[in-house]
Amino acid sequence: MIGLGLIGGSTLRALDAAGHRVWGATASASDAAAATADGYDVGTELVPALQRAAQEDALIVLAVPLPALDTVLPHVTEYAPNCLFTDVTSVQGPAREAVARHASLSRYVGGHPMAGTAGSGWGAGRPDLFSGAAWALTVDTETDGMAWGRVASTVLDTGAVVVPLTSVTHDEVTARISHLPHLFAATLASIGADGGPLATLLAAGSFTDATRVAATNPDLVRAMTEGNHEALLPVLDEALGRLGAARGALASTGSLAALVHTGHTDLQRMGENHSNPRTTVRIDLTASTAHEGLIHVGEQGGSITAVSEGLAVGHVPQR
Amino acid sequence: MIGLGLIGGSTLRALDAAGHRVWGATASASDAAAATADGYDVGTELVPALQRAAQEDALIVLAVPLPALDTVLPHVTEYAPNCLFTDVTSVQGPAREAVARHASLSRYVGGHPMAGTAGSGWGAGRPDLFSGAAWALTVDTETDGMAWGRVASTVLDTGAVVVPLTSVTHDEVTARISHLPHLFAATLASIGADGGPLATLLAAGSFTDATRVAATNPDLVRAMTEGNHEALLPVLDEALGRLGAARGALASTGSLAALVHTGHTDLQRMGENHSNPRTTVRIDLTASTAHEGLIHVGEQGGSITAVSEGLAVGHVPQR
Repeated sequence: MIGLGLIGGSTLRALDAAGHRVWGATASASDAAAATADGYDVGTELVPALQRAAQEDALIVLAVPLPALDTVLPHVTEYAPNCLFTDVTSVQGPAREAVARHASLSRYVGGHPMAGTAGSGWGAGRPDLFSGAAWALTVDTETDGMAWGRVASTVLDTGAVVVPLTSVTHDEVTARISHLPHLFAATLASIGADGGPLATLLAAGSFTDATRVAATNPDLVRAMTEGNHEALLPVLDEALGRLGAARGALASTGSLAALVHTGHTDLQRMGENHSNPRTTVRIDLTASTAHEGLIHVGEQGGSITAVSEGLAVGHVPQR
Repeated sequence: MIGLGLIGGSTLRALDAAGHRVWGATASASDAAAATADGYDVGTELVPALQRAAQEDALIVLAVPLPALDTVLPHVTEYAPNCLFTDVTSVQGPAREAVARHASLSRYVGGHPMAGTAGSGWGAGRPDLFSGAAWALTVDTETDGMAWGRVASTVLDTGAVVVPLTSVTHDEVTARISHLPHLFAATLASIGADGGPLATLLAAGSFTDATRVAATNPDLVRAMTEGNHEALLPVLDEALGRLGAARGALASTGSLAALVHTGHTDLQRMGENHSNPRTTVRIDLTASTAHEGLIHVGEQGGSITAVSEGLAVGHVPQR
């Protein structure tokens, strides 16, 4: 585990609890000291951690911020050139580009757990952070099916389910369900604050829920939203279009029917996706059709729930 | 209690639990049957309920949707012309206009409890719905100080704190902290649904929190947002301005610093307003300065916590 913040620290704890032999390194002396005090085998030196990974043919998890990948990846290539590695970056396109610059894409499987809290650092982590959560693992042209299966198998041991998808699709979907909500929360927080102390006093559940993620460290929010600007811009434009059309309707006809009814129906529809009965599918990770099969599972809203002997087992909602 | 939906039903239960003698009427036969089965003295006939209010000099609470005020208010004027009355309407300007059309503003104190759930109807109500919540009571030109005090005293018995403010300020602030969040939630729900089944699968806390209120009955959302279009339009424009500026910055410089950092700081600032130490103030409701004094309490983010013998006691955050 390289990086022992909220995600790296939680992953280390979860995999340790699942019986994996884990060790790690972090540039943060305080995170290293706290993790050591909690009994984990970690330090502040990257190179020895990578050398040990090479000796033991370990899976390397890069749980560092996107900008740090350009620093860490050359060391991975130098000290553990044959190890598989994955990441936990919230923007997969730029992470993949960093890998392409410094290492081999065939040993890489991009990853992004869809879980978190407003906290950060080792102290905020917990072993059950990923229990029941979705963990995106990318399937791109260069992805090796068996490597994907090994990373998926490890991720499943954290308690997450694995969602296969391309890095492009990942970034497009997270712009919708994570990055835009962060921008909306920041906007609402400022609009509320402009209402003065009365706004604070009268703010109830609708405001508190809608602004909660504005409490996240703004540097992390900037890293994910700015890092995903290519996918985020058209989604932001879609939002501005919907709100602008509603503004026009409110000013001209006084009606917000289109926005309000569509949003209500769309939210219900998403809930139904969750509750549909599921069909089991099996994908041979050694087959030439493995990529296509995995991507199809994700596109249907399905996930991989077990991997063994080159076979991925998934569950897909029925239509 | 006229109307026994979520708010009326919860208010009836809360005041009954506090020892008030309560009775009610509702146009909904099913709500009346359910409330009767729960042991409350309610029916479907408006006129007898109002006649009894006149006999007992009761406070009348109009817990009906805004459009129903035009139907109910003429009966209040006919059958209980000397009773004080209040409402629970989420838009106070139009409610006040309805009162002005059909009844006397000097017997009226506008009210709006800042509490709710996604549920509706008698069955969704509970006696502790208002515990610790803010309950806005309007102070306008025609408001009688002693009448305001009597309504406030009753409202306090629900467990709420009372926030004095003008109807104009109420509508401006609720546009910021309630109505715009509803429009944002509807927008995000549609943007998320456009991401297909994958979006449902990957949606985590940031999306769930941000879209929760889109589950509210869309007719209720339309009633409050469309009813408040005068105050909502400039707030929606402010939001479009902030998001549009962020869009421009993202496209040109790649930075979202202004939006993200300002939103984060603004949310923290609102939290601090909540936690400041408080000063006690006392307002003589019979004095000519009562209006000014009450409004000043609200503007500072303070609330009224007790009323007795013509004196309102409030707590105001220190600067």
